[in-house]
Amino acid sequence: MTSDPGDRAFRVGLLGHGTVGAAFAALVPQHAARVERLTGLRPELSGVMTRRSGSFEEILERSDLIVELTGGIEPARGWLLRAMQEGRHVVTANKQLLSQYGEELWECARANGVQLRFEGAVAGVVPVIRVLQEALAGATIDRVHGIVNGTTNFILTEMARTGMTFAEALAEAQRLGYAEADPSEDVDGRDAAAKMAILARLAFASPVHLDQVRYEGIEHIQPDDLAYAHELGLELKLIGTAERVGSGLNVRVHPAFLYPGHPLASVSGPFNAVTVESEEITEITMSGPGAGGPQTASAVLGDVISAMIPPASTPPTAQVLEIVDDVVSAFYLHLEVADEPGVLASVAKILAERGVSVKSVVQRGLGEQARLVMVVHPVLESRFFAAMAALGGLDVLRAPPRAIRVLEEEFG
Amino acid sequence: MTSDPGDRAFRVGLLGHGTVGAAFAALVPQHAARVERLTGLRPELSGVMTRRSGSFEEILERSDLIVELTGGIEPARGWLLRAMQEGRHVVTANKQLLSQYGEELWECARANGVQLRFEGAVAGVVPVIRVLQEALAGATIDRVHGIVNGTTNFILTEMARTGMTFAEALAEAQRLGYAEADPSEDVDGRDAAAKMAILARLAFASPVHLDQVRYEGIEHIQPDDLAYAHELGLELKLIGTAERVGSGLNVRVHPAFLYPGHPLASVSGPFNAVTVESEEITEITMSGPGAGGPQTASAVLGDVISAMIPPASTPPTAQVLEIVDDVVSAFYLHLEVADEPGVLASVAKILAERGVSVKSVVQRGLGEQARLVMVVHPVLESRFFAAMAALGGLDVLRAPPRAIRVLEEEFG
Repeated sequence: MTSDPGDRAFRVGLLGHGTVGAAFAALVPQHAARVERLTGLRPELSGVMTRRSGSFEEILERSDLIVELTGGIEPARGWLLRAMQEGRHVVTANKQLLSQYGEELWECARANGVQLRFEGAVAGVVPVIRVLQEALAGATIDRVHGIVNGTTNFILTEMARTGMTFAEALAEAQRLGYAEADPSEDVDGRDAAAKMAILARLAFASPVHLDQVRYEGIEHIQPDDLAYAHELGLELKLIGTAERVGSGLNVRVHPAFLYPGHPLASVSGPFNAVTVESEEITEITMSGPGAGGPQTASAVLGDVISAMIPPASTPPTAQVLEIVDDVVSAFYLHLEVADEPGVLASVAKILAERGVSVKSVVQRGLGEQARLVMVVHPVLESRFFAAMAALGGLDVLRAPPRAIRVLEEEFG
Repeated sequence: MTSDPGDRAFRVGLLGHGTVGAAFAALVPQHAARVERLTGLRPELSGVMTRRSGSFEEILERSDLIVELTGGIEPARGWLLRAMQEGRHVVTANKQLLSQYGEELWECARANGVQLRFEGAVAGVVPVIRVLQEALAGATIDRVHGIVNGTTNFILTEMARTGMTFAEALAEAQRLGYAEADPSEDVDGRDAAAKMAILARLAFASPVHLDQVRYEGIEHIQPDDLAYAHELGLELKLIGTAERVGSGLNVRVHPAFLYPGHPLASVSGPFNAVTVESEEITEITMSGPGAGGPQTASAVLGDVISAMIPPASTPPTAQVLEIVDDVVSAFYLHLEVADEPGVLASVAKILAERGVSVKSVVQRGLGEQARLVMVVHPVLESRFFAAMAALGGLDVLRAPPRAIRVLEEEFG
């Protein structure tokens, strides 16, 4: 195999080098070897256009696919149209552009037989776009609800959690990088409105322009609204809705209280989530981190890789990982024991000898018996089961010990 | 346009006519016109093989795509291989087959340049397969957790909710159609193990056979385990896990307690959900109805349509739905009023005159003022805002009225 390595290159031209663009530029070399195993092609950046340098025509000339991460309407619109007319696949995360000029861009992609992918435009790495385009192509959709702006969801979560005012929670969001210096498009609902226009277009196959989406923001929400809502058992979210109303369609964004059973009620902090309802499927919900450079860049890279591989392909195995049997788990342990002095001490000794460390214990008397219920810290399962076997030999046990694993809380 | 309508037909051969097969056969004619608008091709069943009738070779001969819904290893395996060797795309929901002979089948699809789709094999209509194959192709996955068996999740939810024994909850599940007459593969964890083998293969690009998945079921779970767990603030689920352990891989299924913050803790009843964790993306979670004939059939139809359309295509708009502005919403209404007799009566009168019906009220005194916080039943927004305007004119109001929408609880 002495072929020119250039033969196996897949050349990606990058327009834009802001937060997402820089994160994407960093991801490409990190993942190049893995993508090559997956697709047979090695992705490489063939050119990067920043605010100060780079020529679009030169980058186009030497690229197989164009990634547009500049944002705004022009020149992004002209670049994407020109790239597709020249037969290039394109990937963008530009929700403002798609919510206003989507029909023109999608028509251009169809006319030129190229792919226009935009998973990063809505809900970051949560794959709502491809799910609406493909997985749910078999369902008649009645309604889409979404929490599609992470900044406002973070602010509302903080207001509910701490009693802060909107202004205080916004300042906190800015300090932590969840809100931009100029947060107006996020907090007034316009960002979410653009995303809902795109989701509505895909869900209902009917044209929807950003100007047709009614929106309200969260600037007027008061701490006592959240306090009263808490009393009523409700959660407050900025909710986007696209739904059939009679023979028409309504698309809107506004704050709304949710009952705790609603699939979006538990989505907190900077997360995004979208619920799709249909008679055939009841509902499906997808959630994950909404914005953020690395997450959106990961969605963009997913789009690039998808454009490189044939549809519905399961690539050959890239590696043969050894199957490991013994893993670390926390356990709940249930013991029925004689209610006599020293029982807890004997149990604790056996556990300690096997390196099993107790996190919490509840002991409860039941006449001559007692129940010991414990949660133990994560430990190699083989050690825990050795301790179980030893416990089983104790005279004071009145029934075989029972154990159930406990998943540690690692998020949130 | 006088072309033969047969030219625009996309012929689907169906193997199997059980619960899912019959639901799929019913879906195809229902959706044919919509799919034709979407794809330019009209799907039609070219043949159906049941237990008693139909010849595989005849159906293959007159089909563009084969849907296999017979289940089991043979003859399903032979049919799928033969269909792909003859250049046909195939769609299956056969998790047992894929978890044991997946590598052979995927290799056959690659060798023949056809699509092998299997979204219905895991978590019904929840699109975990295509998300792992495509959307997350840009992420290095560390772990997958799943609730991938709806029968056991229903049983555990019922046990926790009512205090029933396992046997009682199983009988209830059978009565409601959530468990089969022979539920052994569901309750002993083997069904979930097959699904986790498939997810692990896709997430880690490493071969995983069903025999390499350790599994435990829920038959031994006692009501008092759930009662104690409730005291400790935990939820009990049958959890599948596929994760990197050192340089290896562990895939397992067992009951586990989850802390309430875990994204799978709130998944209840017959629902399925899968969480994918990766450093780049943090985590994404997808949830929805797990099994059930219509849901799995909808996933199968989604696969068929996906095989008919070019990747990443946004089809032309199929219709122009009128944008409706006035919709029905429930509202929370916050009024700061003078604390004097008759205020509630005046407010209630204005609301009633505009057809706004009150669901709940909290009134609270604050010195000379009081706050009235209400939730009103769903009403046309135009009517509600007319009532708001009228309320704003009341002398007893101490600040402008404030309103926030309330999403009605419609599920669960």
